Amino acid sequence: MSSSDIFIGETLGTAVLILLGGGVCAAVTLKASKARNAGWLAITFGWGFAVLTAVYTSAPLSGAHLNPAVTVGIALKDNDWGNVPVYFAGQLLGAMIGAALVWVAYYGQFQAHLTDPEIVGDPADKPVEGPHEAGTSPAGPVLGIFSTGPEVRSVWQNLATEVIGTVVLVLAVLTQGLNADGKGLGTLGALITALVVVSIGLSLGGPTGYAINPARDLGPRIVHALLPLPNKGGSDWGYAWIPVVGPLIGGALAAGIYQIAFA
Amino acid sequence: MSSSDIFIGETLGTAVLILLGGGVCAAVTLKASKARNAGWLAITFGWGFAVLTAVYTSAPLSGAHLNPAVTVGIALKDNDWGNVPVYFAGQLLGAMIGAALVWVAYYGQFQAHLTDPEIVGDPADKPVEGPHEAGTSPAGPVLGIFSTGPEVRSVWQNLATEVIGTVVLVLAVLTQGLNADGKGLGTLGALITALVVVSIGLSLGGPTGYAINPARDLGPRIVHALLPLPNKGGSDWGYAWIPVVGPLIGGALAAGIYQIAFA
Amino acid sequence: MSSSDIFIGETLGTAVLILLGGGVCAAVTLKASKARNAGWLAITFGWGFAVLTAVYTSAPLSGAHLNPAVTVGIALKDNDWGNVPVYFAGQLLGAMIGAALVWVAYYGQFQAHLTDPEIVGDPADKPVEGPHEAGTSPAGPVLGIFSTGPEVRSVWQNLATEVIGTVVLVLAVLTQGLNADGKGLGTLGALITALVVVSIGLSLGGPTGYAINPARDLGPRIVHALLPLPNKGGSDWGYAWIPVVGPLIGGALAAGIYQIAFA
Amino acid sequence: MSSSDIFIGETLGTAVLILLGGGVCAAVTLKASKARNAGWLAITFGWGFAVLTAVYTSAPLSGAHLNPAVTVGIALKDNDWGNVPVYFAGQLLGAMIGAALVWVAYYGQFQAHLTDPEIVGDPADKPVEGPHEAGTSPAGPVLGIFSTGPEVRSVWQNLATEVIGTVVLVLAVLTQGLNADGKGLGTLGALITALVVVSIGLSLGGPTGYAINPARDLGPRIVHALLPLPNKGGSDWGYAWIPVVGPLIGGALAAGIYQIAFA
Repeated sequence: MSSSDIFIGETLGTAVLILLGGGVCAAVTLKASKARNAGWLAITFGWGFAVLTAVYTSAPLSGAHLNPAVTVGIALKDNDWGNVPVYFAGQLLGAMIGAALVWVAYYGQFQAHLTDPEIVGDPADKPVEGPHEAGTSPAGPVLGIFSTGPEVRSVWQNLATEVIGTVVLVLAVLTQGLNADGKGLGTLGALITALVVVSIGLSLGGPTGYAINPARDLGPRIVHALLPLPNKGGSDWGYAWIPVVGPLIGGALAAGIYQIAFA
Repeated sequence: MSSSDIFIGETLGTAVLILLGGGVCAAVTLKASKARNAGWLAITFGWGFAVLTAVYTSAPLSGAHLNPAVTVGIALKDNDWGNVPVYFAGQLLGAMIGAALVWVAYYGQFQAHLTDPEIVGDPADKPVEGPHEAGTSPAGPVLGIFSTGPEVRSVWQNLATEVIGTVVLVLAVLTQGLNADGKGLGTLGALITALVVVSIGLSLGGPTGYAINPARDLGPRIVHALLPLPNKGGSDWGYAWIPVVGPLIGGALAAGIYQIAFA
Repeated sequence: MSSSDIFIGETLGTAVLILLGGGVCAAVTLKASKARNAGWLAITFGWGFAVLTAVYTSAPLSGAHLNPAVTVGIALKDNDWGNVPVYFAGQLLGAMIGAALVWVAYYGQFQAHLTDPEIVGDPADKPVEGPHEAGTSPAGPVLGIFSTGPEVRSVWQNLATEVIGTVVLVLAVLTQGLNADGKGLGTLGALITALVVVSIGLSLGGPTGYAINPARDLGPRIVHALLPLPNKGGSDWGYAWIPVVGPLIGGALAAGIYQIAFA
Repeated sequence: MSSSDIFIGETLGTAVLILLGGGVCAAVTLKASKARNAGWLAITFGWGFAVLTAVYTSAPLSGAHLNPAVTVGIALKDNDWGNVPVYFAGQLLGAMIGAALVWVAYYGQFQAHLTDPEIVGDPADKPVEGPHEAGTSPAGPVLGIFSTGPEVRSVWQNLATEVIGTVVLVLAVLTQGLNADGKGLGTLGALITALVVVSIGLSLGGPTGYAINPARDLGPRIVHALLPLPNKGGSDWGYAWIPVVGPLIGGALAAGIYQIAFA
């Protein structure tokens, strides 16, 4: 794979991932959306099938990492860091493009939601975010469409939850090549990875909203900060490092477990 | 593939698609249906597995486009427009047959629903359609079983949402041949395409109900206009061009992205 | 395949099918079940994955018809009726065994449900069955765990709905052999067939509860009539012929469409 | 496969299984979880995809039994008991590690839940456990995150339900090798097994919560007894033998049915 194929593939794939993943959060959250309040199953299947579609669309170009934690895990396993910066750049750019496209697709819904006094008038009315400890930065009413946030704010637990979730994901990606008919990230591998992501969402998403991917969280958070949304509130930058650092640790840990167990 | 095989395959497949896709909307909407109010997940999985069944049934004959936007995308990619009119004709005819079969299967439910004064007596009670701007055509109480409609009426946003959704769909169809074990629209390809459609529904269906297919929207709308349903209300012809033009632009755009990224 | 393999395979497979299919209806319906009121999605996925498990378990022995309508469709397609009586016998016996096993697995739940005065004391309280026309036989409070019943009682519509649903099912079974990697009812074919059944349930199950299989309906209805359940009510024999005749017509019709379109 | 590969594979795989399976129960049960009250479908898909992820991660090392009942069924079928103690040891250890990881990932949620007077103040408020007969041990408010429990306490029914569910599971595992493209527990086999587990959950999980795996129930129950959780209540040891003995009988019975039907 050439560097330009990798960059194009990761940009395209991560844009599709965040368009669909952020899209399902918009669909379930925003006023005047047909899917409003469709529930946690809709969110977890929505993110899982977002992975399926994104991997399927980009795998022939870049192998479809779409996640810096996956890139780190594979680089450690193969001991090859040559293309890592290209992967990272494509992933972050793609995530920002995807988040901007969510805004385009749901433009009227964002307007209706953020100008509704019942929603933005009362700062306590933030169901996506839950209880916060004293002294933490308050999150905006639509930030959950862009980035993740904890239900209980605790650096060590939040970090641990992101590490654990990412270990599960990257371990499944790394063992893919060992399974009988899963060579590379082709058709069936994309489906399995997608369902693993549904699994992580259902089982480990409760405390922090399962970023398990630094680009998935940081790119859309930057876009949230930049977009001209009315009454959008803060971007919760105090939390932003956890869904970046946690998944990177998780990806490295998964590579270590892989080395011990399988090599 | 001969022209007659293409015509029969597209007619059969699109009829199955709309029978099952319109069917799930009827199941969830109509009075005296066991599935009433089964929710957005039922609708999105219902449409996705409708695609699976329809593709599976028609792929050996016509390759299972079942969607003029897919036909346009493939014609642009292959630079071959020879059979395009045959595809279009089968798709539109099939969509009309499928919509008529929904009416047969749910005949008693349509009667019970449309003669219930609580449902048709109050023109404000149209949960499928949502808020409308002044001056737009009101939609009938069962039109959502046949065709799509926007929650917030805005030509540019509605068009953009349909374009974006269709780009995701057609890009996944076009890249199918590049993935390891997905040659043509066989068994596994049908499953992946079906889950991509579930994904688009969950993530991008909120604003307009994701037509992403001109035949899927126009054929059933014609049938809605023709059927002798009591108190059926208008067919919302003012909106009808958007789910035709948007998906066609999306299919062409996907072919363009494919050329740039993969060729 | 020998006659004894066919008989054992169909008996085993249909027993698994009805144990799991009837089981999900019991799980969702009965008092003191953890899954009570889990909804229509649970029922439709439950029946679909029941098909998956049952086909997977019996396909190596008998090809996993598990449904007289499928047997009729395949016999017409292949013009070979030699083993049809053996298939039918195994299917009916298996369906009866499966229904009896549901009773064993949910014994305490049946007792708790059928001795609750709030449930059996008021004959109007039968949410599974819905409105009945004057002069029809009333259905018992747990009959829906065993057999299907219409929401609106109308011979011609009920028959038409069962015919249409079965055509979709049998057409997908018959075209399976034509798709690239779906040779026989092996692993992937079982999955596709299962999801087609989910699709039919979501889209066409609203009016009659989608028997689409004479053995699935008749066998458990006989068991309902025989079991010593307290306050079980009638077995609705007046309706029993429709889910037998409708699916058989549907299977034959699917074979006809297959001959015209694919042969 | 060497003994050490088997031990590592089963420990790793069962840890992933219980992390994700216990995780979805925590997600749906605990206060301050984004997935709270996500319902029975979330639990059953969560456990099913937990199986998928766990099998996928461990199959290259140990064949991914992850369940003593599966190990017994395969040992009986192959008449080879050499590695059975190694399988058992890895499964129990892995289950305990997984349950402890659930506690880490949901640490703040456990604290919030178990210190809420509305939840632990009233011993009658245990929705996971249901009605108990006089004289049985009361179960703690979070025990359902670790281990299973019956809705109606009845030794023979509870045992029968666990036996029946396990027969369905182990029979599907044993017949896997006979199906066309399912050789061993590779990619597609893992998916089918996962959906069979979803099926058993939806259809047979209502009465006892479907342990169908002695390690899945016993290992986490030990961890529940050991963890320093406030107000955690009893571990219901009076019931603990049923989800151990029932699945072992079911695994043996499945091997017997397999011998009769397929050998």
